[in-house]
Amino acid sequence: MYKQTEITLTPKSRGFHLITQDIDKALQQLPPVECGILHVFIKHTSASLTINENADPTVRADFESHFNHMVPENQPYYQHTLEGPDDMPAHIKSSLLGSSVTIPVTNGQLSMGTWQGVYCCEHRDHAGSRTLVLTLQGE
Amino acid sequence: MYKQTEITLTPKSRGFHLITQDIDKALQQLPPVECGILHVFIKHTSASLTINENADPTVRADFESHFNHMVPENQPYYQHTLEGPDDMPAHIKSSLLGSSVTIPVTNGQLSMGTWQGVYCCEHRDHAGSRTLVLTLQGE
Amino acid sequence: MYKQTEITLTPKSRGFHLITQDIDKALQQLPPVECGILHVFIKHTSASLTINENADPTVRADFESHFNHMVPENQPYYQHTLEGPDDMPAHIKSSLLGSSVTIPVTNGQLSMGTWQGVYCCEHRDHAGSRTLVLTLQGE
Repeated sequence: MYKQTEITLTPKSRGFHLITQDIDKALQQLPPVECGILHVFIKHTSASLTINENADPTVRADFESHFNHMVPENQPYYQHTLEGPDDMPAHIKSSLLGSSVTIPVTNGQLSMGTWQGVYCCEHRDHAGSRTLVLTLQGE
Repeated sequence: MYKQTEITLTPKSRGFHLITQDIDKALQQLPPVECGILHVFIKHTSASLTINENADPTVRADFESHFNHMVPENQPYYQHTLEGPDDMPAHIKSSLLGSSVTIPVTNGQLSMGTWQGVYCCEHRDHAGSRTLVLTLQGE
Repeated sequence: MYKQTEITLTPKSRGFHLITQDIDKALQQLPPVECGILHVFIKHTSASLTINENADPTVRADFESHFNHMVPENQPYYQHTLEGPDDMPAHIKSSLLGSSVTIPVTNGQLSMGTWQGVYCCEHRDHAGSRTLVLTLQGE
């Protein structure tokens, strides 16, 4: 069984945002699978997806701080600068984190650890809404 | 065909560890698939999975050195510090490397390159055992 | 339905290269799936795959510049140096970006965003050809 659906996330501020509830809500609207995998894909190159700690908001704040440190704006070697200082770092951060996450599904539920949640990582200063493609497969 | 199993890795020291044999052993206990994919997922946010060089232990030592350099402890901007100086870097390293790997399976075997192996990347100083969810699919 | 095929990429210079056309061409030679996923896996540990901006070549140039900055050659702590100064950084870059990408397939086509393309990231100075395993699944 394969089912695909697209969801649109509301525009978010630059930073790391928990979206586990959005993913869960979309999953519950698909036919239940006993054993399978959910693939979540973001159709953009300046925002990304990752799985990390779901409880303390300072973890997400520290992610934003460290990614800004590790991939700074205005590096002298950047040539792709026309769309603003946040643009090229956004592309690099996106590839460091990745454009998809895949999560086991067991008895109709995401089989993540207790402390795991899905993040949408918004790397632009003034981004619009973001589209995700969810593909559920299993039996 | 979808089959899922959980395996528990013994506690490991901070660093990068080859676990191809653990994965292979678990794969051999599942029904064989001629053509498919193995998805390996770690249910934690301070350890991660990646695929890299399987022969020379200095590669894994250099991974540890470089990740400590690229994501240092005690950065002045870290706010999430209550669980020790190794905690926030562990979360960041986990997302840089990722919480899953997916590997083609051909004639019942992992279809990796000659030099590829699966690493469990332990980012905490004193971690316990780690749980992986393996989902095999194919036909 | 699961179908697997291997493709060989011609040797590429060190840097980030768009390979969407190679992937698309291989996809069109597999049976069409209405809803599914394409998994692309690179069988090497010093080259990697990612999804990013498909239009402006300076984006790919800036990726190369920044990865060289973030994972420099000749770090004093590298022990794995026998195969040249580009070797250990190549391993680290490979794991930062990853050895596979997974892309939704809808009505026989890759369901990527308008600006997304697949990159082959070549991290060695004098690499040979690179082999990819493509696994298409769906119905």
